[in-house]
Amino acid sequence: MAPAPPFLAEDGPEDTEAEIMRAAYAALCEHGYADLTIERIGEEFPKSNSLVYRHYDGKDDLLVALLESMLDHFEGREPCDGADGPRERLETLLDRAVTPPSGEDAEFESALVELRGQAPHNEDYRRHFTRADRVFRAGIAETIRRGIDQGVFREVDPDRTATVLFALLDGLRLQRATTDDGVDGEAVRAELDAYVEARLLADDTE
Amino acid sequence: MAPAPPFLAEDGPEDTEAEIMRAAYAALCEHGYADLTIERIGEEFPKSNSLVYRHYDGKDDLLVALLESMLDHFEGREPCDGADGPRERLETLLDRAVTPPSGEDAEFESALVELRGQAPHNEDYRRHFTRADRVFRAGIAETIRRGIDQGVFREVDPDRTATVLFALLDGLRLQRATTDDGVDGEAVRAELDAYVEARLLADDTE
Repeated sequence: MAPAPPFLAEDGPEDTEAEIMRAAYAALCEHGYADLTIERIGEEFPKSNSLVYRHYDGKDDLLVALLESMLDHFEGREPCDGADGPRERLETLLDRAVTPPSGEDAEFESALVELRGQAPHNEDYRRHFTRADRVFRAGIAETIRRGIDQGVFREVDPDRTATVLFALLDGLRLQRATTDDGVDGEAVRAELDAYVEARLLADDTE
Repeated sequence: MAPAPPFLAEDGPEDTEAEIMRAAYAALCEHGYADLTIERIGEEFPKSNSLVYRHYDGKDDLLVALLESMLDHFEGREPCDGADGPRERLETLLDRAVTPPSGEDAEFESALVELRGQAPHNEDYRRHFTRADRVFRAGIAETIRRGIDQGVFREVDPDRTATVLFALLDGLRLQRATTDDGVDGEAVRAELDAYVEARLLADDTE
């Protein structure tokens, strides 16, 4: 949705917590959720494993902390905040949503589906994804609201539009991570173009 | 999407396989995936547990068989095949998609998200969900195709439209099963109405 949180950057902060987060992220991408253990996270951690155990109760405790740290970074931001105006942001968001990620991003997308699968029976994951959905949905709504203010988008209900778009993006990610076919990104993008044209763009916008 | 498979009906067939499937479905709804064991499935089974073990290698083997049996029932059908014409089918599908299920249906929806979460690391689940997505997407596309033939819908690309709608429905289910907020069904339905109006309905349809 936006550049990764600074603690995931190679030249990110070197405090213990940031290092544990980086180790957890790397191990999650490498092993996926099902095969992840605190020991495997420890293998990615440059300091003593005992530090990981001292900070977290187990792999779920640590993974929820990772997800929350990543989410903190996105909170209050609009999606794709490198892009210029509201329309460009929305287009960039949709472009990214239909483009299958590769490498570590693909591994993380898959792992995220596994972690979502914990939410029905694990309250901590559930609380996190409740917050995550609010944050991302609000970011999209804000872009739409700004576009309406600038006369680029029509006077639609920003929250309603964001709810539909965000559910669609989540569905695409889910289907991509759990099937061999993936999703026909070009087809989806073309239909989203038609939707934006028909429902969102102000009449005098080309 | 349609009435449940006959083997799940109370007066369904009484052969051993159907009884195992019913037991697996009941136990999955009651315990969810994470807490499910073959023993717990056996508790729902009227005959000797050893029969379950004789037929299936473990809980995943049995659950994939359950999912496949359910899917067999939907294969080749259009969604909501009780409804009259293509437009009514589509409307019924969208109505159902935004209505949170209750009771056992809600429990099954949650369990399905847990099972989807196995697909990134388990090839059998992945193969099943690949097939499932094809079947459901094709059913929606068929409804749209029929609507175009009958002049109710415009000459859209049925597969493209079905891909987007189906991803959206999956996203709604995912968000509902993994968050406390759920999804604002009324808002989504209103936006879907607007979408159908703007993109699908033929000009002379009211």
